[in-house]
Amino acid sequence: MTFSYVSHLECPKCQAILEVTKIQQLCECGSPLLVRYDLQKAKKHVSKEKIERRAKSLWRYHELLPVTAEENVVSLGEGGTPLEKMPRLGEHYQLANLYIKDEGIIPTGSFKTRGASVGISKAKELGVEQLAMPTNGNAGAAWALYAAKANIKATIVMPVDAPAITRKEVYIAGGDLHLVEGLISDAGKIVGQLVAQKRVYDASTLKEPYRIEGKKTMGYEIVEQFNWKVPDVILYPTGGGVGIIGIYKALKEMQELGWIADNKLPRLVAVQAEGCSPIVEAWKKGETESTFYENSETCAFGINVPKALGDFLVLESLYKSNGCAVAVSEDELLAAQKLVAELEGNFICPEGAATFAAAEKLRKEGWMKEEEVVVCLNTGAGIKYPETVELSNIPTLQPGESIKS
Amino acid sequence: MTFSYVSHLECPKCQAILEVTKIQQLCECGSPLLVRYDLQKAKKHVSKEKIERRAKSLWRYHELLPVTAEENVVSLGEGGTPLEKMPRLGEHYQLANLYIKDEGIIPTGSFKTRGASVGISKAKELGVEQLAMPTNGNAGAAWALYAAKANIKATIVMPVDAPAITRKEVYIAGGDLHLVEGLISDAGKIVGQLVAQKRVYDASTLKEPYRIEGKKTMGYEIVEQFNWKVPDVILYPTGGGVGIIGIYKALKEMQELGWIADNKLPRLVAVQAEGCSPIVEAWKKGETESTFYENSETCAFGINVPKALGDFLVLESLYKSNGCAVAVSEDELLAAQKLVAELEGNFICPEGAATFAAAEKLRKEGWMKEEEVVVCLNTGAGIKYPETVELSNIPTLQPGESIKS
Repeated sequence: MTFSYVSHLECPKCQAILEVTKIQQLCECGSPLLVRYDLQKAKKHVSKEKIERRAKSLWRYHELLPVTAEENVVSLGEGGTPLEKMPRLGEHYQLANLYIKDEGIIPTGSFKTRGASVGISKAKELGVEQLAMPTNGNAGAAWALYAAKANIKATIVMPVDAPAITRKEVYIAGGDLHLVEGLISDAGKIVGQLVAQKRVYDASTLKEPYRIEGKKTMGYEIVEQFNWKVPDVILYPTGGGVGIIGIYKALKEMQELGWIADNKLPRLVAVQAEGCSPIVEAWKKGETESTFYENSETCAFGINVPKALGDFLVLESLYKSNGCAVAVSEDELLAAQKLVAELEGNFICPEGAATFAAAEKLRKEGWMKEEEVVVCLNTGAGIKYPETVELSNIPTLQPGESIKS
Repeated sequence: MTFSYVSHLECPKCQAILEVTKIQQLCECGSPLLVRYDLQKAKKHVSKEKIERRAKSLWRYHELLPVTAEENVVSLGEGGTPLEKMPRLGEHYQLANLYIKDEGIIPTGSFKTRGASVGISKAKELGVEQLAMPTNGNAGAAWALYAAKANIKATIVMPVDAPAITRKEVYIAGGDLHLVEGLISDAGKIVGQLVAQKRVYDASTLKEPYRIEGKKTMGYEIVEQFNWKVPDVILYPTGGGVGIIGIYKALKEMQELGWIADNKLPRLVAVQAEGCSPIVEAWKKGETESTFYENSETCAFGINVPKALGDFLVLESLYKSNGCAVAVSEDELLAAQKLVAELEGNFICPEGAATFAAAEKLRKEGWMKEEEVVVCLNTGAGIKYPETVELSNIPTLQPGESIKS
């Protein structure tokens, strides 16, 4: 019984091959590394039917994840998030088959948990005792909690403006929390120094190869939940872009495994905020890399990433899948957040809301047809973002008073 | 294909029988009503194996839920929450088989969602267009969001001290939110007036019979997740007590269905805060009803219920299962919350934390043996309670500074 068919690490830029049994960070050429599997062997021993009978955690895909010994798995029951049809919102947008993939329904309340579960499990397997990472909040929270479970020391550096609740998550987990009066790029420099001085494991986005593997399970799940068929379009809120890179990787793996047809991919859409849209700018110009986006700003804090290390992989996934990149305004995404709650009962995060605003836009432009199967990926629970909902006109009564109608 | 084997409503106090096809609130005698099913017929047509093959929502138990037509189901993908072993905390407590049932991993981030999904679905089936309810926060949030999805108008009244995020959940759902400068009992009176004047559906705890049915699915799930065996002990944080009433009801139903042995029930433990422990007081005296607990206070807001309408049913479940009732202090529950996060990575709510503090206590007293299978029920996500975590000594750096080691 092989728990994982992982074989090696590969550099998508210079094609270098690296060992998966040692701690690896970036490739010598500066590129993130991708995990490769012996998919031909996996094809013989793993079937869709076998997977369907397993518990609904993301670890049901363990043969296609990088952890080789089951005892190293660090799990809080993550994965198997709902994929739900949205009939009322769909009618409003004229999309007859609109779905939400709701990543808010997961430990720590954000999709960062998938990367943390797989990343921490592999770190444990590699013998890591201390790690450090910069974060816009949710990733740091997830990694700190999973690190606590694995008994790994986690140094987390986040901007003072990151969502307040994420500080408390790191703190309660016993994480070594530091704030910085700056951006995630400033946090990154602080972590870089620490890594250089103390030789701690660098868990920054894409600087360790395993977070992508956790995120890719969203792609496996969406396809499995559609009974092993691919939808027409997947919209993804894009900051660092690990999720869209992972979903694209999952789709290619499933094609090689023979689990989905190899002549159709869903069109992948990178959604950004107008205040931080480097991928959209690059895509419009047909470029293969993005340019640092100056003075970026958006309330969707998780996608405030001016220049992603994996930008070239994000753009590749858009071009190869006939997808596109779309920017939406703050007003548009906040209105979408409210509309989703009012019509469908999901309280989603502003990043997730951006994908709904984008869906409306792409439908109006005719880029999506009414009957197409469209999945909006909500990356986190709205309850982690209280500041995006402004209350007004809430009556306060005294005991004994009655409601005026 | 019968979707539900629901047959009638029954009063557990005066044994009156009522129709399930009409709107019903309390029994004329003042007692909450319980939903009854034709379990003998269900036994013939529903098997454990059939259920295991279904999607992980709580609606997998639909034959044992009160909604008769599938199209009335209002679902956001609730249920199938993780049941995870806690080896490190278990070692600390000397409990070799300690588990968490984590109800924070659910839409709206609290177990109230189960009651809301089933309650709103049945309200929709009964043609309800407007409902009202008092709440300590989480229930109101869940009901407002599910009501929005069902296009039912929801009037929600909550104390100004209820968790701040729950106001925002009601508001974003388009709920008719009112605050009261008082307790949930004051909110209840305001709702009572509205119900009397305007004939809106009263969705107060236990004043409609279907919320219990949603909550009871926790019992079905725990047993199914243990491969249809019952654990030795289930600890439940008890405010209104609907969950413990529901779990006990599920256990009795499963016995009648022949799904579990009829000679062993898990010992049910009602956990309360020392600042609000009416059930503990009643249990100590062997009484069958509780007395209003004056000047109640606890940071575990969801269990600040001085006198529960279903107290007699809660106490019955304790006596009949050879369980007990335990109170823990604020310090004990906050320390347990921190310890759970540090050792196991779960950021749980203060109500859930109370069950862990109680487990430690009952183990020390010898009431539980080291090898017994013990389940602590965490009723919500810690991220909904930022105020329970007080930060101290968090260093703030300037860009370019480095971490002092």
